[in-house]
Amino acid sequence: MLRLVLASANPDKVREIVALLGAVPGLELVARPSHVPEVVEDGETLLDNARLKARALRTATGEAAVADDTGLEVEALGGAPGVESARFAGEDATYAGNVAKLISELDRVGAVTPDRRRARFRTVALVAFPDGDELWAEGEVRGTIATDPRGSAGFGYDPVFVPDDSGGRTFAELTSDEKEAVSHRGRAFRELARRLADRG
Amino acid sequence: MLRLVLASANPDKVREIVALLGAVPGLELVARPSHVPEVVEDGETLLDNARLKARALRTATGEAAVADDTGLEVEALGGAPGVESARFAGEDATYAGNVAKLISELDRVGAVTPDRRRARFRTVALVAFPDGDELWAEGEVRGTIATDPRGSAGFGYDPVFVPDDSGGRTFAELTSDEKEAVSHRGRAFRELARRLADRG
Repeated sequence: MLRLVLASANPDKVREIVALLGAVPGLELVARPSHVPEVVEDGETLLDNARLKARALRTATGEAAVADDTGLEVEALGGAPGVESARFAGEDATYAGNVAKLISELDRVGAVTPDRRRARFRTVALVAFPDGDELWAEGEVRGTIATDPRGSAGFGYDPVFVPDDSGGRTFAELTSDEKEAVSHRGRAFRELARRLADRG
Repeated sequence: MLRLVLASANPDKVREIVALLGAVPGLELVARPSHVPEVVEDGETLLDNARLKARALRTATGEAAVADDTGLEVEALGGAPGVESARFAGEDATYAGNVAKLISELDRVGAVTPDRRRARFRTVALVAFPDGDELWAEGEVRGTIATDPRGSAGFGYDPVFVPDDSGGRTFAELTSDEKEAVSHRGRAFRELARRLADRG
């Protein structure tokens, strides 16, 4: 039995990770202990940040830790918000604040038509083992940014991200099963599960 | 550190339980192991079912286990669906199937106006300890059943349950923080956390 402590305390992310890894045989998923302090996510890449979070938790607990970092990269904004996605509208940004900032930035640069609003979501998920070993996987989904938020499922930028081949629906208009089948986080964690199984 | 294994493998419920208990000091929450078989929920009350699930998991793992059972009780239907809420439309019922059945049953009995559509959600949350001790808590929220589903947050009957004092919004139109502040499950798990803290 491999015991994995989850670095994320965000219930929305925990929901998805449990949905994605909860049925993997031989894994025991443990919620982040409340006494472990948060780490400053000042890495330059998603991989840096996932590693920072997983290593800090491994150090605090002495156990294998899994962390992920996710970024929304918008072409017309030169790849922004990227690693800044969670705090695009400021340090204490809300989901709605980040979405509003994204829409206003796209307006500001005149990116109105769908082909000017191309974007991708990327997740890097990483396990840091007590022996220093690390395993990681990446997932990506391409799409466009809607002009107005639609739907109330999901979280974060979901109400304005329209994945390709979704019939024009945003992530927030998909069921959680539909979202996880194609999402960046779904792809990253399924690949991570395969790599964990290969490692044995 | 009290280690609690979660009986529910439903990601939506896990999300709420982690949001409600994740910050409680001294608790370690562990996801349901994938090898533990499901238990038949044939109790006559919510407390019976929560106890059945927690005891079965405690037996399978030898550890303290927490389970909850939730029912929607509709006055005009004599308290139905109650303990049958998760399978109102049949054994493999979907959330949408159960909602559709509820609406059609209310139509059938002619319960059209809000005062004829009164309902309450109840949750019983129970911890079974390895030494045979048990702790439980109950949470309740009153409201009415909407005539049509609205909103896509939450899960289950959330799109048709309008809690009192929500300004007419369904649970599925509230943010998760708003829902957890007043919900049956929020109230049950906050009370359970207090009882766990009192027990020490």
